[in-house]
Amino acid sequence: MNAINPYEYGMPREAANFQALSPLSFLERAASIYPQRVALINGRQRQTWGETYARSVRLASALAKRGIGLGDTVAVIAPNGIAMFEAHFGVPMCGAVINAINTRLDAEAIGFILQHGEAKVLMVDKEFAEVAQRATSHMPNRPLIIGIDDVEYDEGQLIGELDYEAFLAEGDADYAWQLPADEWQAIALNYTSGTTGNPKGVVYHHRGAHLNALSNAMCWDMTRFPVYLWTLPMFHCNGWCFPWALAAYVGTNVCLRHVRAEAIFPALAEHAVDHFCGAPIVMNMLANASPELKALKTRPVKVMTAGAPPPAAVIEAMESQGFQVTHVYGLTETYGPSVVCEWQDEWDSEAPEQRARYKSRQGVRAPLLDELMVADPQTLQPVPRDGETIGEIFMRGNVVMKGYLKNPTATAEAFAGGWFHSGDLAVWHADGYVEIKDRSKDIIISGGENISSIEIEDVLYRHPYILEAAVVAMHSERWGETPCAFVTLKPGTESTEESVIKFCQHHMARFKVPGKVVFCELPKTSTGKVQKFVLREQAKALA
Amino acid sequence: MNAINPYEYGMPREAANFQALSPLSFLERAASIYPQRVALINGRQRQTWGETYARSVRLASALAKRGIGLGDTVAVIAPNGIAMFEAHFGVPMCGAVINAINTRLDAEAIGFILQHGEAKVLMVDKEFAEVAQRATSHMPNRPLIIGIDDVEYDEGQLIGELDYEAFLAEGDADYAWQLPADEWQAIALNYTSGTTGNPKGVVYHHRGAHLNALSNAMCWDMTRFPVYLWTLPMFHCNGWCFPWALAAYVGTNVCLRHVRAEAIFPALAEHAVDHFCGAPIVMNMLANASPELKALKTRPVKVMTAGAPPPAAVIEAMESQGFQVTHVYGLTETYGPSVVCEWQDEWDSEAPEQRARYKSRQGVRAPLLDELMVADPQTLQPVPRDGETIGEIFMRGNVVMKGYLKNPTATAEAFAGGWFHSGDLAVWHADGYVEIKDRSKDIIISGGENISSIEIEDVLYRHPYILEAAVVAMHSERWGETPCAFVTLKPGTESTEESVIKFCQHHMARFKVPGKVVFCELPKTSTGKVQKFVLREQAKALA
Repeated sequence: MNAINPYEYGMPREAANFQALSPLSFLERAASIYPQRVALINGRQRQTWGETYARSVRLASALAKRGIGLGDTVAVIAPNGIAMFEAHFGVPMCGAVINAINTRLDAEAIGFILQHGEAKVLMVDKEFAEVAQRATSHMPNRPLIIGIDDVEYDEGQLIGELDYEAFLAEGDADYAWQLPADEWQAIALNYTSGTTGNPKGVVYHHRGAHLNALSNAMCWDMTRFPVYLWTLPMFHCNGWCFPWALAAYVGTNVCLRHVRAEAIFPALAEHAVDHFCGAPIVMNMLANASPELKALKTRPVKVMTAGAPPPAAVIEAMESQGFQVTHVYGLTETYGPSVVCEWQDEWDSEAPEQRARYKSRQGVRAPLLDELMVADPQTLQPVPRDGETIGEIFMRGNVVMKGYLKNPTATAEAFAGGWFHSGDLAVWHADGYVEIKDRSKDIIISGGENISSIEIEDVLYRHPYILEAAVVAMHSERWGETPCAFVTLKPGTESTEESVIKFCQHHMARFKVPGKVVFCELPKTSTGKVQKFVLREQAKALA
Repeated sequence: MNAINPYEYGMPREAANFQALSPLSFLERAASIYPQRVALINGRQRQTWGETYARSVRLASALAKRGIGLGDTVAVIAPNGIAMFEAHFGVPMCGAVINAINTRLDAEAIGFILQHGEAKVLMVDKEFAEVAQRATSHMPNRPLIIGIDDVEYDEGQLIGELDYEAFLAEGDADYAWQLPADEWQAIALNYTSGTTGNPKGVVYHHRGAHLNALSNAMCWDMTRFPVYLWTLPMFHCNGWCFPWALAAYVGTNVCLRHVRAEAIFPALAEHAVDHFCGAPIVMNMLANASPELKALKTRPVKVMTAGAPPPAAVIEAMESQGFQVTHVYGLTETYGPSVVCEWQDEWDSEAPEQRARYKSRQGVRAPLLDELMVADPQTLQPVPRDGETIGEIFMRGNVVMKGYLKNPTATAEAFAGGWFHSGDLAVWHADGYVEIKDRSKDIIISGGENISSIEIEDVLYRHPYILEAAVVAMHSERWGETPCAFVTLKPGTESTEESVIKFCQHHMARFKVPGKVVFCELPKTSTGKVQKFVLREQAKALA
């Protein structure tokens, strides 16, 4: 080894040879080279990349004029549409952080997020006016509220100090936005579903957003000019970084307010869509659509799915209809998908059922995830690749979050030992593919949404007659999974399933309400812990 | 703006969420997920990605055992083959820097490079034994010489302390190679052709190599499993970073020792090649191949070309034969190509000649180049986008070199004002596309008018009998300078100076018409570029 390293002499990082990695570069490039290409389609609206860039710059400028900048949070409650897309660029262009909030949350949960994230601005689509108003009504530092008036949507109510278009008009077209000085700067804030108490705010930085956008596009063999249908909410891990990937690949974003087969199939046909993402429930919906709707699909479409292990039968049904399914896996903490079930040629010759089974495994590291392993949660020793030994999935690398906002303890726990602890339990197959067997935190995934069993139990425990409660996932034709509650009543009290469900409806978002309530004694271990695996077996029989 | 930025609190870079960007990750991934896929084809030899990874690890280990590590240079003089490919991974895996040397250089030039780069190890293919021996014979610190015995090549002479396979055998299969601690660490050293004095050593770092590998693949719409024919030498900007891109996309590298039409067409057919790179001279060679050879090409092939502005006529000829040409531009200092002539749909409807003219422009920034401009070399003020005003091309960003080895003065000059000075003169079109008019030193100034030698060459290439053409300045009593054309005729054709001049008079302004036409073989550099300084000397004698 050289005593003095000549390669470290006189070659520092400087303006000519070092720039922060940021997905904002993708937008500037798309707009400068392909200004006339269509970036966004929303109903009858069409918007080019040139226009999208100009409007994003105005948004950044308008925010800056209101004093918003480095370290500030701009929250958005909106469906996949033009404003939501532009916020993915305009907000970070002024140095701020975009916090896209799950529109299915109740006012209490949204209120918590706005408080914890210290949102200075809240952009709200008409459809979510009511919940937003309730969420902000008691806030000590109420954010500036900007109403989004989607001309394609006649319902709802426009609220806020001013409307989005008026706000854009406040901005300067020639605002000198800049790349972040440091690519480690935060670009987005995404709240987890809060499996253990309050949700945690996962922070993404520009470097990771840039890299995972490219990585997910590579997983999919994406080439220039994709036509992408937005069935996946952008509030889920920033749409798995696809708003940024679409800018990098100069694609067309086809927006969809409500994800229904009746809207998806016509959109596929009308816009020559070739890509979309969705939870297995979306695939299930399409696989079970009417023959009339299905007949609208005339060309191959690539589908990326994640959020729950997709049932082999659903994959099989989709592939038989000419959808090419790529199964990916990840968490909010890994910018969405960071693991991909890469296809092996030799699987082509297998029977459809076996092929679908291969495809339902979570897979291997995506192109730009650095490392992936299944290991003992305590020792971090990798488990044998025998397809049987259960361990926890660990990731590390540039597409793992910056950390949890204002929660160094949780960040330190999540990164203990130099790896991100996913909390998902899996086996490691001989070929290096990971397959999830269980969720260590008992997450229920319903319609693509993570539901914490603990959170529902918390509510049940607040019911005056309920002594004990345990919630597990139950199979649902419609949602993939739905919560199933097992409860023990207090002695001398009486209740009904209907009454318990009604209680839940008052205290949680609709999609979290248990589909079934069973009255029984809870099975317990010798140390008094509820044996959820026993309940899961019972739930299976009930489904 | 927030007084205290909560997004900078308690979220440092650590092992779980930060890893150095490096193309070495691509190899590890290809080998772990697709160990059985063919990585390399060299004559009758086949080598998988699993084997290539294992051998690269052994190479790194063997080097480390000889004391080679951080900051050390390992030089290679070899054709595109297995050892050269493996060196692109094995050398940096032990922390060292690969210096792939142009095999067409003479002993003196190679000797200078080995001395300046302080090579500790020199890997030499049999074919280049003699020049390597002469180059090293007088070195005070002679490097360890390792002979490469390509079993597919019967000629030449094996030299060195030991042979490459024996050296690999010294390495451990389980050597714990590591990613660089800092992605700014050097990975490669490439010497410029040294048009003005001694060549300069351009240093690449892991970050830039990673990013330009992806950027060039994106330019080409590359998807997984490309079959790539090596017509471009790997000693040329590390094959434009394609050894690393091929690992990222798990492709097959088809090696070719000597670039001839007689070898290229059969290789396209035999291996179902779908991609290759080459200077315009390679395209010219294929465009002028025999009908029998051309008949071997039965499927579409993507061609990436750079190294000189491709004459429109050559592009047109290639495209008419089903080669899809992507024209890119760059310099050794920008990791090879970093500018791409992105195609616009509306050009499809133009006549073939106009299409080829569009395609012969250098274009716009490649996906991962940060900025590109044409500007005044002194003031760095961008020129108007009028397609007429000549300025210098400037780039900045992550795919600009780390700097020149042991030459901070040249580095500072190259980066003056925060931009990399390319030395190429160009105009900027209204659509943002850059078009090179000449190297600074290749411009001909006649009667006060700037004449682009490229423009004249473009016309000469359209002459039916002209195979190759090069134009330089010649002294003129009257005009100061006048163009002097050197041309090579196609086999079996004849022409006269008078007839060529008449052809020019029909196709260009009078003041641009060459004052002299010389019929000859064009002198070329090792990379196939015409040696204009030789022609200038000849033109001096003719004036």
